[in-house]
Amino acid sequence: MLYLVGLGLSDETDITVKGLEIVKEASRVYLEAYTSILLVDQSVLESYYGRPIVVADREMVESNSDEILRDAQTEDVAFLVVGDPFGATTHTDLVLRARELSIPVRTVPNASILSGIGATGLQLYNFGQTVSMVFFLENWRPSSFYDRVKENRDVGLHTLLLLDIKVKEQSLENMARGRRVYEPPRYMTVGQCARQMLEVEEERGKGVYGPDSLAIGAARVGGKTEKFVAGTLKQLCDADDALGPPLHSLVLLGRRAHELERDYTREFALDKELWDRIWNSDYGKQ
Amino acid sequence: MLYLVGLGLSDETDITVKGLEIVKEASRVYLEAYTSILLVDQSVLESYYGRPIVVADREMVESNSDEILRDAQTEDVAFLVVGDPFGATTHTDLVLRARELSIPVRTVPNASILSGIGATGLQLYNFGQTVSMVFFLENWRPSSFYDRVKENRDVGLHTLLLLDIKVKEQSLENMARGRRVYEPPRYMTVGQCARQMLEVEEERGKGVYGPDSLAIGAARVGGKTEKFVAGTLKQLCDADDALGPPLHSLVLLGRRAHELERDYTREFALDKELWDRIWNSDYGKQ
Repeated sequence: MLYLVGLGLSDETDITVKGLEIVKEASRVYLEAYTSILLVDQSVLESYYGRPIVVADREMVESNSDEILRDAQTEDVAFLVVGDPFGATTHTDLVLRARELSIPVRTVPNASILSGIGATGLQLYNFGQTVSMVFFLENWRPSSFYDRVKENRDVGLHTLLLLDIKVKEQSLENMARGRRVYEPPRYMTVGQCARQMLEVEEERGKGVYGPDSLAIGAARVGGKTEKFVAGTLKQLCDADDALGPPLHSLVLLGRRAHELERDYTREFALDKELWDRIWNSDYGKQ
Repeated sequence: MLYLVGLGLSDETDITVKGLEIVKEASRVYLEAYTSILLVDQSVLESYYGRPIVVADREMVESNSDEILRDAQTEDVAFLVVGDPFGATTHTDLVLRARELSIPVRTVPNASILSGIGATGLQLYNFGQTVSMVFFLENWRPSSFYDRVKENRDVGLHTLLLLDIKVKEQSLENMARGRRVYEPPRYMTVGQCARQMLEVEEERGKGVYGPDSLAIGAARVGGKTEKFVAGTLKQLCDADDALGPPLHSLVLLGRRAHELERDYTREFALDKELWDRIWNSDYGKQ
């Protein structure tokens, strides 16, 4: 059996009781560690589970999945995923491959940022599609997120933006020379995301949002040090210190917001007066 | 401290290790039991936790929240919610009230149907807003869901429909006579939902979807007996036997679907040939 086990959002105790039992019994335990991270190290997980863990990087999962699935027709293999197992496309691939090999699959769901973001006080019913924001490079500034955000904003819905993480990346030079030397991990911040959003609005110019649009920066959702900062996109460009360490996410508000959402989120506003003023003029419309 | 503890989707072992520790230590334990249900009885939870549970019905949570929050400034109160604590608006109210009373609040996230539905193989990025479908009555057939589905369909996104549950409801007669006699619980099925959808399309006539639109019926997501049935809305009108007992949910597909989604969902199709034919003509367009 292949078990896809969600680990939740924060630390080693966010695994479910069911998930923990599976991890303790499995023949081999893999940890997918390139689409998201927990706020604790692998060693903490290993000592908590009492089991060694093989960290599965993107290359292993995408090109060498048969090693992960080896003998899973008769043995139990646990594949651990931060958040919920179906957050990333990659795992669909792994299940399809398991089906081809006649390996039964079970999923152990867990919290995902897609529902965890409800802790902002924004209603999950008022979110449109979720989008990803990647680190811009000098010659690569993909702006398809802008079209998706526009679709949400056009009908008044909130947008959750999931922010890029880079782990085990090689510099072009090291890649060219075949050196297995990796860059330090990088996690996009709310400030970086807000700046990229405003740059793209400037380029594309459709007025999907602007510096005064309301948004909420979220850090370490579901963890003990969870933190929310509400403000305009312009304010959020400089709110990284207030938010603290990764992981960050950003929600751009939609105008269809409900007054219960206003009452709840106001608590997080950097400048409550400004928040109220913009809210009252532009938000809460059906 | 008020702890909002998510229970996940299926049985007593879907609680997180962190959540279980809180439940075992809390002074009082409440279970919100009117927006969703687990697949096991309250007595199973009580014996698993080793704690008595007070079932909190809608009236208690909405009108008598101060009883739930009593002394939570100094004691720990655990408020258990099936799925993730922020799935329903009601709990936002409870937290706002706690804030007024200077009670600190912590949330323990868990799996929600909003991410659990990823087990269909549909990509969570391709979902628009989530909508609710209520039981129609003779004189009350709210069709605002249709406008929301249209917004999703217009841009090619999937729609998750969460289906009504009725627990501890009184008949009009018993209510009028003040008799505390309750109707047996009712859970909307995929078949009922599909029929109501087609009725409303007939009334509203905007061609948002039709009998040949592709959809997936989901039952007991996250549980051992989880079951998916894929077909046209017309087929799903009669698929309740194949799906089995509650809880059910339904996903109406959007045309922007990806071929990986096709490969994965095809496995669940009632009629693979029909599924392929409609998919190839209407879906997978960007």
